[in-house]
Amino acid sequence: MQRTLVELIAAKRDGQALPAGDVSRLIAAFSAGEMADYQMAAFLMAVFFQGMSDVETVALTEAMLHSGRVLDLSSVRGFKVDKHSTGGVGDKVSICLAPMVAACGARVPMVSGRGLGHTGGTLDKLEAIDGFSTVLSSAQFVKIVDEVGACLIGQTAEIAPADKRIYALRDVTATVESIPLIVASILSKKLAEGIDGLVLDVKVGRGAFMKDETRARALAEALVRVGTQAGKKVVAVLTDMSAPLGVEVGNANETREALEVLHDRGPSDLLECTLVLGAEMLTIAGLARTTTEARDMLQGVIADGRARDVMAKLVAAQGGDSRVVNEPDRLVLAPVTVDVTAERSGVVSEVDALEVGLASVAMGAGRTRADQAVDHQVGISVLKKPGAAVKAGEVLARLHVRDAAASTEAAARVAAAFSIGERVSTPRPLVIATIR
Amino acid sequence: MQRTLVELIAAKRDGQALPAGDVSRLIAAFSAGEMADYQMAAFLMAVFFQGMSDVETVALTEAMLHSGRVLDLSSVRGFKVDKHSTGGVGDKVSICLAPMVAACGARVPMVSGRGLGHTGGTLDKLEAIDGFSTVLSSAQFVKIVDEVGACLIGQTAEIAPADKRIYALRDVTATVESIPLIVASILSKKLAEGIDGLVLDVKVGRGAFMKDETRARALAEALVRVGTQAGKKVVAVLTDMSAPLGVEVGNANETREALEVLHDRGPSDLLECTLVLGAEMLTIAGLARTTTEARDMLQGVIADGRARDVMAKLVAAQGGDSRVVNEPDRLVLAPVTVDVTAERSGVVSEVDALEVGLASVAMGAGRTRADQAVDHQVGISVLKKPGAAVKAGEVLARLHVRDAAASTEAAARVAAAFSIGERVSTPRPLVIATIR
Repeated sequence: MQRTLVELIAAKRDGQALPAGDVSRLIAAFSAGEMADYQMAAFLMAVFFQGMSDVETVALTEAMLHSGRVLDLSSVRGFKVDKHSTGGVGDKVSICLAPMVAACGARVPMVSGRGLGHTGGTLDKLEAIDGFSTVLSSAQFVKIVDEVGACLIGQTAEIAPADKRIYALRDVTATVESIPLIVASILSKKLAEGIDGLVLDVKVGRGAFMKDETRARALAEALVRVGTQAGKKVVAVLTDMSAPLGVEVGNANETREALEVLHDRGPSDLLECTLVLGAEMLTIAGLARTTTEARDMLQGVIADGRARDVMAKLVAAQGGDSRVVNEPDRLVLAPVTVDVTAERSGVVSEVDALEVGLASVAMGAGRTRADQAVDHQVGISVLKKPGAAVKAGEVLARLHVRDAAASTEAAARVAAAFSIGERVSTPRPLVIATIR
Repeated sequence: MQRTLVELIAAKRDGQALPAGDVSRLIAAFSAGEMADYQMAAFLMAVFFQGMSDVETVALTEAMLHSGRVLDLSSVRGFKVDKHSTGGVGDKVSICLAPMVAACGARVPMVSGRGLGHTGGTLDKLEAIDGFSTVLSSAQFVKIVDEVGACLIGQTAEIAPADKRIYALRDVTATVESIPLIVASILSKKLAEGIDGLVLDVKVGRGAFMKDETRARALAEALVRVGTQAGKKVVAVLTDMSAPLGVEVGNANETREALEVLHDRGPSDLLECTLVLGAEMLTIAGLARTTTEARDMLQGVIADGRARDVMAKLVAAQGGDSRVVNEPDRLVLAPVTVDVTAERSGVVSEVDALEVGLASVAMGAGRTRADQAVDHQVGISVLKKPGAAVKAGEVLARLHVRDAAASTEAAARVAAAFSIGERVSTPRPLVIATIR
């Protein structure tokens, strides 16, 4: 006899693994309004304590995926591959990565998010480009992926609506930090893009969602296992997010920095992160035999300008002013600058990404609630990164603001993010592990 | 800084004991609609896993108690004491106990419940008496307790409304079976009666909410600890509920049987249960020095008719036809009887209280949903109890029904409740433990 919803909640509470069919039934009942929010909340808390097997997580992923529309990219030739980052500070990788990987021959249908809390979002950054639209119809999206090679849009209401409702519930019921729930949430949205493969950038450290390497590794491994069981080619890379990635934190300034990568003028850590993730994408796409070969291809499309060409077409196709690609300075920053200087000489040992991210939110570059607008032109330039030698009085960071007087708290927060020591400590490696 | 609701849920999830003030704040927020049902559901599931300290449980009890009205019995002289049973099959103890204890000099302000699932409810049983009302104003209730010595009413919407909402949530979120939540739910309602002392009948066995003695004992101990910390005199008695209590299961027939106790014609197990619980009530009320003395007092008020006098006044004061007290046969049963007979000779080893209770529900004497009406006149007489020697063909139980043809399933269920063995096994003691 079919178990009732309450019996299914009780079974999970008591540590039973639910058959895939029961997991699907639960999500179907929730989507249909037959399972109440409070019942889902109790179920989510039970999952927090009892976990989920991979079979259950695959079933949950697929049920959430099929709660909405799955994009049909069957008309697009080539291997469709996306990258997803668990979020960080200064993480503008998608903006340079998508055109580079597309220029190498893969198709990159990328559905991105907005900033929330201390982490930024690709959509907010892209919208700093005049006219750029992240809201396209499915038909437009498919056409641009096919013709340009990449397209960057936002999640529509049609994509995994059950995930959207469950995510909102988790946020207010202290059930965010559950690995199977995180895995199903990420994968259901990504798989709804109709992709063949996915590279995950699981960030670790102060500025990341996962502060702890053990937990981050567990998440990365679960993502790879579950994604693979769902029939996709999946690789996860654990990367450091203790300090911001690159120099710029904000919106217009981050997009500008990502475009600079396409001119081979980007900061080395941002370039490296892009190459590492891009190499995995090209390898699972079968376009390169090794990641070394893939890195060469990616550097080739920077050198010969093909990545810039793809980006210019992408920006134009999405309604934006494509002149920014060759002239990134067209992205205007807020007119006032406030400098944060070193109080003493020494070597920068830490730049706390969380503090920088929170300062950026306080300045208006980010949001604390999903319905807030962001100011695209404000931001922070982190001019000294860990390992840099500095003299007392030297500029550590520069805030781009509208009003200097209103920025003292943000400046103090940025100043507090810097730790200056006596001598050089071993720098943290950017790539901590790759899980295939 | 005050923690947010989500932070409080997370703290409980992570195994922290919440300060009493935070528990109160949570219930206040829930009552005010600032904490959503889904947040409470997640919190309840977290409590299911992490438990609550006694300090937290006292705080939860008092917060739920003060979510509504606390009856003011200060004008009533004497020690106010109530009895609460965790529910069983054939448990009509309250109906004979209240007048007996009142006749001995204690005041018994009793707020009872209705039947649900396989367990019956005192209110349904009392309403089998013509005209008897269990819905009275607080003023009427206080007046009857003062003048008659006892009054039996239902829970009003004013009593512990937070408990009512939380209980409804627990029921549909698989969070019923949590000892601190059960304790707070029972005690908040009982303490809202304005009592000085409370005796708890924690039932154990097939027909009880707690099937397992270890769990039942833990519940009884928690009830005594928390109730005592809340400033009340509290005793718990663990009693057997593997077979129905007494002979009758239903409504009119149970009330009739309880009234027979007042004539000293009740079945021995029902009388014993009543005496045991009543003796604890009189002892904590300071009306008897020992439970032996208290038992003598209780048997005295049966013998001299004072318990019947109190009951007659109580029934009259609550609008009922008080002639039933001296003439219990005025409680009419359904006209048709169906007998369940022994298939073989031997000794009755088990009468499964759960099966008998479910049969009673199927016959219409109980309900599966709170909004269902009950038929007061149908019921089951369990004529052979564990330990009874029976011959093949002898009547084990008699069903009082409206329609014999429609009762074959209930009769089969009652038949299946009986186990007949070769020889007498050691009978289960009625009282398993007393926790003071």
